[in-house]
Amino acid sequence: MTRVLNKELAGHIGETVTIQGWLHKKRLLGGLNFITLRDRSGLAQTKIEDKDELEKLRGLQTGSVLSFTGTVVADERAPGGAELHDVQIEVLVPVEFESPIEIDKPLDHKSENLDTLFENRVVGLRNPRETGIFKIQATIKESVRQYFHSLEFTEFNSPKLLPAATEGGAEVFTLDYFGKEATLAQSAQFYKQMMVGVFERAYEIGPTYRAEPSATTRHMTEYITVDAEMGFIDFQQLLATVGGLLKTVTESVWKTNEADLKTWNAQPVLLPEQIPQLALEEIHELYSKQTGENSRGEKDMRPDEERWITEYAKKNLGSEAVFVVKWPASEMKFYHRKDAENPEFAERADLIFRGLEIATISMREHRYDVLVEQLKTMAGGDPDADGFRYYLSAFKYGLPPHGGFGLGLERLTARLIGLSNVKEASLFPRDINRLNP
Amino acid sequence: MTRVLNKELAGHIGETVTIQGWLHKKRLLGGLNFITLRDRSGLAQTKIEDKDELEKLRGLQTGSVLSFTGTVVADERAPGGAELHDVQIEVLVPVEFESPIEIDKPLDHKSENLDTLFENRVVGLRNPRETGIFKIQATIKESVRQYFHSLEFTEFNSPKLLPAATEGGAEVFTLDYFGKEATLAQSAQFYKQMMVGVFERAYEIGPTYRAEPSATTRHMTEYITVDAEMGFIDFQQLLATVGGLLKTVTESVWKTNEADLKTWNAQPVLLPEQIPQLALEEIHELYSKQTGENSRGEKDMRPDEERWITEYAKKNLGSEAVFVVKWPASEMKFYHRKDAENPEFAERADLIFRGLEIATISMREHRYDVLVEQLKTMAGGDPDADGFRYYLSAFKYGLPPHGGFGLGLERLTARLIGLSNVKEASLFPRDINRLNP
Repeated sequence: MTRVLNKELAGHIGETVTIQGWLHKKRLLGGLNFITLRDRSGLAQTKIEDKDELEKLRGLQTGSVLSFTGTVVADERAPGGAELHDVQIEVLVPVEFESPIEIDKPLDHKSENLDTLFENRVVGLRNPRETGIFKIQATIKESVRQYFHSLEFTEFNSPKLLPAATEGGAEVFTLDYFGKEATLAQSAQFYKQMMVGVFERAYEIGPTYRAEPSATTRHMTEYITVDAEMGFIDFQQLLATVGGLLKTVTESVWKTNEADLKTWNAQPVLLPEQIPQLALEEIHELYSKQTGENSRGEKDMRPDEERWITEYAKKNLGSEAVFVVKWPASEMKFYHRKDAENPEFAERADLIFRGLEIATISMREHRYDVLVEQLKTMAGGDPDADGFRYYLSAFKYGLPPHGGFGLGLERLTARLIGLSNVKEASLFPRDINRLNP
Repeated sequence: MTRVLNKELAGHIGETVTIQGWLHKKRLLGGLNFITLRDRSGLAQTKIEDKDELEKLRGLQTGSVLSFTGTVVADERAPGGAELHDVQIEVLVPVEFESPIEIDKPLDHKSENLDTLFENRVVGLRNPRETGIFKIQATIKESVRQYFHSLEFTEFNSPKLLPAATEGGAEVFTLDYFGKEATLAQSAQFYKQMMVGVFERAYEIGPTYRAEPSATTRHMTEYITVDAEMGFIDFQQLLATVGGLLKTVTESVWKTNEADLKTWNAQPVLLPEQIPQLALEEIHELYSKQTGENSRGEKDMRPDEERWITEYAKKNLGSEAVFVVKWPASEMKFYHRKDAENPEFAERADLIFRGLEIATISMREHRYDVLVEQLKTMAGGDPDADGFRYYLSAFKYGLPPHGGFGLGLERLTARLIGLSNVKEASLFPRDINRLNP
């Protein structure tokens, strides 16, 4: 008999069908026994009354793979509004080991329990609430791509095996590459800029590596970045593109994954037509005045300030996202562009969303001679080194004004759902203490 | 004035518009001067008659970024059927260096010239024929995803930083991970199987690493694999899924990128409803009989045999793709499943497409105890080692019968277009001799 998915049961009331999936939960109440079966589409409730059938399940643990053939009966109390009765059971794969982690109740995500969560990740992910995180993440990726395609971006793949350290600092993984030293890409920065000369608008969703030597709630050693770059635009157009992306993704996730979001008690996102832009020093001033702290003159945002400005913007500007602009040029990377009218500032923005920086955005210096000079004086880089000369050739042979951004996929996922640690939004997180599973 | 794309010119006949892009080609014929401008949408022909305007281009090289404002005139001979006249030129970014590689003529892809091609890749990719390869590749990726989504696969990202070598042999990159040894993923194999327990059907398009110590036309050290895995299926359903994927991608590429395919003289793909399945030994027999070679009894296909069988199948079976089935169980990987009815064979297939193996497909052993046994006896693996025990836990707690495949994105791209080296289908190829650009 052809298999029917759990979510399709309600369309087969009165029919005899076969469903297949994992033993999710047993409730044995003597004469009345309910078995919940999980498949890719969700849960199905089944009622087993026949003792011989029930006997087949003796000793079987959660995760056993079963095939149930029975009659579909409408029942409002069952998930999906239908239940399977008069079930004939076939055991496809018996499981005799008791699950190391609960599969049918919300798992503990308190920070002191995360290590247990990740240690048992392979099985824990089968908990539908956990699965939901990554269904949401899959929607985010798809929505990001659709948005980019609607704007005529071309998707590309940049190499992650690179020659000796380029833009990064010390936090770089190195490896032996047939006797030479190679490094793992800390970003797709140089490649996405090169791609402006080819596609004008290009994006990649790919892995990024940072040998971050501490375990924090916002860092991993391997994570997924949405990298994008576009030519023939100015700073405000760039910010509008990022704002549009956040809005599109938010709407798409709430449309596609509302049920999963609700199991996490996720709150709808408050976003105005235009994401407000606040100058770094303006935020320092507001924060210092209202909290009694003093961040005035600091060249970065404090983590606490990122949380504070979100609350402020939510209350006063009707937005859970803020662009922090007017960053000091003295702190910028060599490939950033200065604001032509206010050269003490770089044309850079951070996107703070629900208390966390989720994207860094900037216009790039596109003039070859200025860029070479900035590389030498600001980064101490050698324009003839392998790590730079190919990159610089893109400028030598003509790049238009351009800008782009990198957005952390796990950070965005975590903030949309309300998870407090980015690792909760990574299937198999990696940090200084964890290289498994 | 708002920018109009080159491809949109024909919709603005008689209007004054601005186009922006790269100086692609100059033809200065005295009074009559044609300048071709390139933007993300293609090429536009412009006619410059005013001497003062022309003077602005003096000394400017290919790649200079220009803004042209002029009147759109219909002209059948121009690309897109329209041309820009009475042009006012604004030089956005002047380029004074002569392009190291030709941008407006087909680049030389002969094997002895590939090193030059890759050395100048950053600029060479701007050649529209080269750009076309990666537009086709972007379509392939999008088409693969749409196909998977239509079958309810969920996209996931697996880590590429792994603990000490697992399934692979010697060809693995290792790196220092905070004092421990880590390796770069040679495949997403273990993770996609784990994902069957979570999503039932899962796929990833991601980078894969192999420390291949030789330079061949079919290997790179970093490449992109389409990895997929599905539960509750049998071998024939799996092969049908792969066949459907190849058919869908082929149709999609020819629909979306026909013009680019034609610049490469790519030929439409001959594929029947069902891709033919030929046993390995049957192919050895046919090949040996017809070529005078002798591959009988060999446990793999010879590269020449892969080419030969494609010609054979094209002529006799109306197919440029072949599934090679009935591989000896003695040669299978420990996670492969034996054919229950013919245990001397593994339930594995290779997909040969236009003379090249582009995918490896197999059913996996899903029974925990059998798998542990196969791991020990066939691979000499320790079930308690980090590289295996998390993987095995997916089986310990229940996985249904499942199978999947890995398909090389660059290989598929190369064979669809007719490129003879997979590196030509990688933006920035990596091999033993090349870690740049």
